[in-house]
Amino acid sequence: MNNFTFYAPTYFSFGKDTQSQAGALVKRFGGSKVLVHYGGGSVVRSGLLDTVKASLEAAGLAYVELGGVKPNPRSGLVYEGIELCRKEGVDFILAVGGGSTIDSAKAIAAGTVYDGDFWDFYEGKPVEKALPIGTILTIAAAGSEGSPDSVITKEEGMIKRGASGEAYRPKFSILNPALTQTLPPYQTAAGITDIIAHLYERYLTNTKEVEVTDRLIEALILTMVHEGPRVIEDPNNYEARANIMWAGMMAHNNSCGVGRTQDWTSHNVEHELSALYDCAHGAGLAVAMPAVFTYTLHHDVMRFAKIAVRVWGCQMDFDDPERTAKEGIEALRRFLISIGMPKNFEELGAKEEDIEFLAHTACYGTENADGKLYGFTTLDQKDVEEIYKLMV
Amino acid sequence: MNNFTFYAPTYFSFGKDTQSQAGALVKRFGGSKVLVHYGGGSVVRSGLLDTVKASLEAAGLAYVELGGVKPNPRSGLVYEGIELCRKEGVDFILAVGGGSTIDSAKAIAAGTVYDGDFWDFYEGKPVEKALPIGTILTIAAAGSEGSPDSVITKEEGMIKRGASGEAYRPKFSILNPALTQTLPPYQTAAGITDIIAHLYERYLTNTKEVEVTDRLIEALILTMVHEGPRVIEDPNNYEARANIMWAGMMAHNNSCGVGRTQDWTSHNVEHELSALYDCAHGAGLAVAMPAVFTYTLHHDVMRFAKIAVRVWGCQMDFDDPERTAKEGIEALRRFLISIGMPKNFEELGAKEEDIEFLAHTACYGTENADGKLYGFTTLDQKDVEEIYKLMV
Repeated sequence: MNNFTFYAPTYFSFGKDTQSQAGALVKRFGGSKVLVHYGGGSVVRSGLLDTVKASLEAAGLAYVELGGVKPNPRSGLVYEGIELCRKEGVDFILAVGGGSTIDSAKAIAAGTVYDGDFWDFYEGKPVEKALPIGTILTIAAAGSEGSPDSVITKEEGMIKRGASGEAYRPKFSILNPALTQTLPPYQTAAGITDIIAHLYERYLTNTKEVEVTDRLIEALILTMVHEGPRVIEDPNNYEARANIMWAGMMAHNNSCGVGRTQDWTSHNVEHELSALYDCAHGAGLAVAMPAVFTYTLHHDVMRFAKIAVRVWGCQMDFDDPERTAKEGIEALRRFLISIGMPKNFEELGAKEEDIEFLAHTACYGTENADGKLYGFTTLDQKDVEEIYKLMV
Repeated sequence: MNNFTFYAPTYFSFGKDTQSQAGALVKRFGGSKVLVHYGGGSVVRSGLLDTVKASLEAAGLAYVELGGVKPNPRSGLVYEGIELCRKEGVDFILAVGGGSTIDSAKAIAAGTVYDGDFWDFYEGKPVEKALPIGTILTIAAAGSEGSPDSVITKEEGMIKRGASGEAYRPKFSILNPALTQTLPPYQTAAGITDIIAHLYERYLTNTKEVEVTDRLIEALILTMVHEGPRVIEDPNNYEARANIMWAGMMAHNNSCGVGRTQDWTSHNVEHELSALYDCAHGAGLAVAMPAVFTYTLHHDVMRFAKIAVRVWGCQMDFDDPERTAKEGIEALRRFLISIGMPKNFEELGAKEEDIEFLAHTACYGTENADGKLYGFTTLDQKDVEEIYKLMV
């Protein structure tokens, strides 16, 4: 196991009706003037936004609002948020929504207290300072409610990039599984896929003898495999929603990923898809993961065989472990299709003729890029093109 | 799943040579005058204490020392520590040792800033305020390095009781698996048993549909079953030690126990044993657990069958689940014996003639006791006597 540090000081309030604690929690964590950040649609229609605002008012807190966050959140709204926060003297950002809203809130939180362009953080500058952030989560997916990460898309060139830093860990997160019951099945499934991807990306490691984190990751994927179909079948299943919601947080707060190298190739490959075609991140991952795993299988056949046996219930083929490894990838693919996720470029709305552009952007798109993707294996543009071809 | 809150803001520095960060971390978390609290023996002999003191000095921090913590830490030393802290104006407690030292440090931390008798907290008063605590862990066992819990034994009557409160969560914990390599096999095995008990006590729940925490608990027990024998075979196996150390923290920081009722009968029953006979807590648990589980089996046969199949690899007997459930308990018993733990009263140094006293103290020993133990099942003194008889 590699040396590591782990620090996850987010306060979680989990369960029914917890959204009414928003005001008290903002106050507890030092906020006095709040930016309430959200997307729109269901957060407004369901009355959640009104509940949150009433809770802030009851706590005697002033606030301003900024809605309009879209999936694959854009830099344009972040700049708008930064300007608003500075003008209004905001000292706390409250995100009401899913991963996109939380990620947008994080970018605003860092940008408001930074002299330069917030995009610097998404080009590799570590996030060291940000306004405090609270979240009220409405979809189990990104894990941003407990993570130090944020992903933003820059309109110019449609470049999607991530930033990280301890200042991005929310001070508190309110997790009410009932708030996710109104989600359409497709979005629910995309969230489940994102959570599974966060687990696979940690599982694919080059660090030896990391049994505890291997087992924790397997436990969380097994949970998704058990609860995923239940919630697709019955969107109002609170218990299944609750299990998925805690699993989603645990999958990405990194307690199951410490002390080991991680992969993130599937995310890198996917980011170009959702940036260019504006598909759901999880849907892109459903197409990307089996392709990436098939392409990188030979790097460590036994690791893929291990997850095939332990998670997917495959029989170990002791004469031909590669057969078992491939069975595991097939089982993952079938599972994702069974919950309603797309299986190829066509279903995703992606185009074969864009492959060279996609691979080039994945390998050269960032300021410090050297033409390679580093993770479980090291891949160059030709490799990444081959991976995209497997998705057609 | 039940509503819950989860807040575990401990900073962990994990890995080789991390003990030299002690001074910097005390400073980071606001300490200026430190009580260095420890047991003795190996912490001194190994040079660890000198390293820690050098690190404090390098950070420009003043400190006083209090050694002499014993396993099943006593209230006498806590009173001494409180007096010392007040006299010297200590504002940070640094525990260097195992669970006993950390628990003693927590009691001192709470007692120093409390007007009454610190024992009040161990009679049920919630711990709301305490001096900040840091730890340098030397045995994977109690999980106190990441938990809000502490257990102290009162010399008068040899009463062993626990206290809890968010103020008991350490500000930081330094976890270097190499520091545990000098532990004798018996202590290592007792630590492993304690960790397994923390997991079983959470597994035995009356809350339905808690798949995510079930799976996380199973993952951590599976890790102990895999790594335990490796470290008993080769005490210098750093990797096995590392997996056990992170599992030990995760087992008890409650991320795998949220939103569900828990048991704690085995701990309650054991506390009387280690209080009266001063045996290792883990050794007492090794004898107590199979007895408690056998006695409470019929309360929920399927739960015991589930852990038998998923953790112990038993074949599910679909005609007779009880057979599977019992096989799981037997597998646990055999595992604990295989790593060197005692199997009955005799090996533990306990006496059959004390059973009535043990059961009485377990049921009536605390100020608010009503003669019953509440957990997975509700037990009265007669039940507890039967459980102790199963250990003979």
